[in-house]
Amino acid sequence: MTSPTDPETEAEALLALAHRMADAAGAAALRHFRSPGLATDDKSDGADFDPVTAGDREAEAAMRALLAEERPDDGILGEEEGRTESRSGLTWVLDPIDGTRAFIAGLPTWGVLIALDDGASGRIGIVDQPHIGERYAGTTLGGARASYRCRGEERPMGVRACAGLADAMLFTTAPELFEGGDRDKFEAVRARARLTRYGTDCYAYALVAAGHVDLVIESGLAAYDIAGPAALIQAAGGVVTDWQGGDARWGGRVVAAGDPRVHAEALALLA
Amino acid sequence: MTSPTDPETEAEALLALAHRMADAAGAAALRHFRSPGLATDDKSDGADFDPVTAGDREAEAAMRALLAEERPDDGILGEEEGRTESRSGLTWVLDPIDGTRAFIAGLPTWGVLIALDDGASGRIGIVDQPHIGERYAGTTLGGARASYRCRGEERPMGVRACAGLADAMLFTTAPELFEGGDRDKFEAVRARARLTRYGTDCYAYALVAAGHVDLVIESGLAAYDIAGPAALIQAAGGVVTDWQGGDARWGGRVVAAGDPRVHAEALALLA
Repeated sequence: MTSPTDPETEAEALLALAHRMADAAGAAALRHFRSPGLATDDKSDGADFDPVTAGDREAEAAMRALLAEERPDDGILGEEEGRTESRSGLTWVLDPIDGTRAFIAGLPTWGVLIALDDGASGRIGIVDQPHIGERYAGTTLGGARASYRCRGEERPMGVRACAGLADAMLFTTAPELFEGGDRDKFEAVRARARLTRYGTDCYAYALVAAGHVDLVIESGLAAYDIAGPAALIQAAGGVVTDWQGGDARWGGRVVAAGDPRVHAEALALLA
Repeated sequence: MTSPTDPETEAEALLALAHRMADAAGAAALRHFRSPGLATDDKSDGADFDPVTAGDREAEAAMRALLAEERPDDGILGEEEGRTESRSGLTWVLDPIDGTRAFIAGLPTWGVLIALDDGASGRIGIVDQPHIGERYAGTTLGGARASYRCRGEERPMGVRACAGLADAMLFTTAPELFEGGDRDKFEAVRARARLTRYGTDCYAYALVAAGHVDLVIESGLAAYDIAGPAALIQAAGGVVTDWQGGDARWGGRVVAAGDPRVHAEALALLA
């Protein structure tokens, strides 16, 4: 930690700030959700449609404004405005609206993603869905813990046990996002899983952290897509790596599981 | 209508009853949603996993109890308890939890589906998502109208204009549910659509009715899967048929669109 405050107080202050950032970003995004006049720009430069909206931009700006005031020395890596170098050793990794496609489709499985990274690992992770009024939050600062809030009520949460892939509920965003041989590897896992669901973006990771889903497999992720969910799942007792078992928090191909037995079985098919 | 009351009063009474049925079913289902001890039975007799839970059974029973008391002569076609013949000419078509896979995964895209069918067409359609607190309802009794309720607030809703497939947002539950040549036909539509999303069950139809999504294409549906959504979309100004342009309300292969131009373009590729 970067301040002379005692670590426990500092941890609480950082977590409280993360919650206020989620409040601000969620409010900004909601002002545009299901808005009939919502304009959608394409960031893709002619490749696959990559939508961005005023909701994304304003939600990230709302979080950056809080950080500029309260943590000016912390770094920021945000989807919409790029990177601000850290002078404190801490970096906030922000995706103001993960699942912009769901957002523009009116589907409430998008989320505001927030991570706090200390250079070695993600220490705070938040997935917030403001239309439903749900927040999944976890931290390993001052001891690992995670909580679920739904419209004012809060309770502790954690991953669930799952003995193996045959019992596992598997999520991914869309099977055609796996390129080349990755698709075959994903299908090998899917064929062994109990049940597979598509189309959930960050919400799937939140459900792993809350103990409702066992496994998420994705590819082609950016750091801001996975930093928040990965820190959240680790705080809730789960395992998140890349397909080789290495650090996943900067993106790429990700396998996230609540139970290490499921993670190991999936990794054996993916690596 | 079967009663001597004037048609407008009768229409209002039937719509009010449908809302009370949705209230009762939603409350019953929610008691089991994300419950750690939720038992899942398999109805499939060894084919693909076809889950059913106490949530499904109790939600249907709650709706049937209201009908037994208030509309004993109406027919009922329900997913869990089958068919009760109609003596009034009216039949309620009920899916207590459409999207049981989403339900057991903790994902709030399942819904309570209610339709009232007069033998010629669906006259009331409801899609209710009680965890989010959203209800999409429509009727063509006493004039076509549809409304969106979210946690106490209600407003009128309707489909949106969409000039063609190139501008259309397309939803389906999962591409692998299309069998044989149906998969190729679906892919032909998908290749032309602006954006495709998976994994939404009945929620996709609700989003068409509310003007957020343009097109839903599915196959292998039962009557109780589509009767409520189809009546809802028609009340909201959209078009729902089978892949040949015929009546879709008894299930099978379904194409549902907000704008008739999108429907026609999709149908040309599917038929």
